Amino acid sequence: MDTVSINKSHGGEQGVYKHASDSTGTEMIFSVFVPPHEAGAKLPVLWYLSGLTCDHSNVTEKGEYRAACAEEGVIFIAPDTSPRGDDVPDEDGYDFGKGAGFYLDATQDPWAQYYRMRSYIEDELPALIAAEFPMADMARQSITGHSMGGHGALTIGLRGGERFRSVSAFSPVVAPIGVPWGQKALSKYLGEDRAAWRQYDACALIADGARVPELLVEQGTADQFLDEQLRPELLREACEKAGIDLTLNMREGYDHSYYFISTFLGDHIRWHAERLKR
Amino acid sequence: MDTVSINKSHGGEQGVYKHASDSTGTEMIFSVFVPPHEAGAKLPVLWYLSGLTCDHSNVTEKGEYRAACAEEGVIFIAPDTSPRGDDVPDEDGYDFGKGAGFYLDATQDPWAQYYRMRSYIEDELPALIAAEFPMADMARQSITGHSMGGHGALTIGLRGGERFRSVSAFSPVVAPIGVPWGQKALSKYLGEDRAAWRQYDACALIADGARVPELLVEQGTADQFLDEQLRPELLREACEKAGIDLTLNMREGYDHSYYFISTFLGDHIRWHAERLKR
Repeated sequence: MDTVSINKSHGGEQGVYKHASDSTGTEMIFSVFVPPHEAGAKLPVLWYLSGLTCDHSNVTEKGEYRAACAEEGVIFIAPDTSPRGDDVPDEDGYDFGKGAGFYLDATQDPWAQYYRMRSYIEDELPALIAAEFPMADMARQSITGHSMGGHGALTIGLRGGERFRSVSAFSPVVAPIGVPWGQKALSKYLGEDRAAWRQYDACALIADGARVPELLVEQGTADQFLDEQLRPELLREACEKAGIDLTLNMREGYDHSYYFISTFLGDHIRWHAERLKR
Repeated sequence: MDTVSINKSHGGEQGVYKHASDSTGTEMIFSVFVPPHEAGAKLPVLWYLSGLTCDHSNVTEKGEYRAACAEEGVIFIAPDTSPRGDDVPDEDGYDFGKGAGFYLDATQDPWAQYYRMRSYIEDELPALIAAEFPMADMARQSITGHSMGGHGALTIGLRGGERFRSVSAFSPVVAPIGVPWGQKALSKYLGEDRAAWRQYDACALIADGARVPELLVEQGTADQFLDEQLRPELLREACEKAGIDLTLNMREGYDHSYYFISTFLGDHIRWHAERLKR
């Protein structure tokens, strides 16, 4: 792992790092904020998965999370959303290919060689964090994300078993099997066998038996993608059937942007911190 | 004035606007955050002047000011740092020309036609704000800024008489007459008569009799420009001689970036709000 930059901020250190990833076969960049802490302290970890078109830098610059992480003593990790580089296959359009990895392991050529973000987030990057950040308490992890990254947080969280103490999301894609973004990505990355899609769909995972005790979801009512791509009512129905305690905060007048996320990300950090410290 | 964008954030509205400026003869863009407020309320105004290479968007995206402005009920205005456009003369280099207006009215050709940021910030934009934002209480204004914009805040504040209730700065250029950034800009914009430079140098203004009761300055000790360009010790000496109550916070390990500014901008907003509400 190489350090790209470290800047002191809110009493802690905002770092950006790169490493050669075995999962994707590319160099991958991610950011980590380590809050101020006593020498030898072990700090819980919050993962933040970003949305379409983003890399680590969007939330790092616009997320306004450092104040709350410093107050609560939480490490904040922001990975990229896909493999990058000239060798990596891509397509025109913002919703597939680079910047749109959908947190899955692709099975179809030419995507399968590089697009392995599930393995990267579930296995490789946590191992790297554990090895390189001795203050990170990997026994206390939580996860959140935005839009496509909200889909990532929900599906990785639902499949994650004991790994995560808590799972939340902002404006998540909750049912990709049934919406245009998801249908495009899942068919191209995974092929036409829809049975293989269900492990990458939060509502399908819940219908198939995956459980977490509770979920926190933040959603703006003025979000341009609300009705066609996000459809939080489907998550509400799935959670009601499954007995999952969903808190779905519909926020009047907020859109899909970081102006929305940054308004409520501190609240999510405090919600996760409460669960990470139990 | 035309609206470029409005996004709900922290309960208020983050807007970006453009207008045809008489001062610069160009279209100018600026951002305004209006915090949540009761209908008919009048809110105080904090001006934020940005540094070299920046436009309105840097602090708007990275400044983390909206939470404090929403709590305190303060309007936050972020103008651009220079005229823009294909007709506007420019030079290579980040420290002169576009993005480097130094908040002065140029007198030398070819700069004098467009580079009139002093008139823009002192006269034109306040009048536009008063006309377009009826909730803005122009009887209660304060000013801050970063680096070249800290220079702008200090010099406009020191010359501003009763206009400002309070003046602060982050990593300001306090004595441009004596440092490379300032010497380059002042000689090109104003010519070689150094007497004309003194109205654009905070330390010279104080030596020549300009007064404010107090100043708040935030400065990182790991700032790469500290020793050559910023030299806060010169402001300390000038304030001591003049009896100006300067609070100079030297922040260990912080650099010149928005990671530094965003850490302490909330503190400055609260400091200004206290004075704006007296």
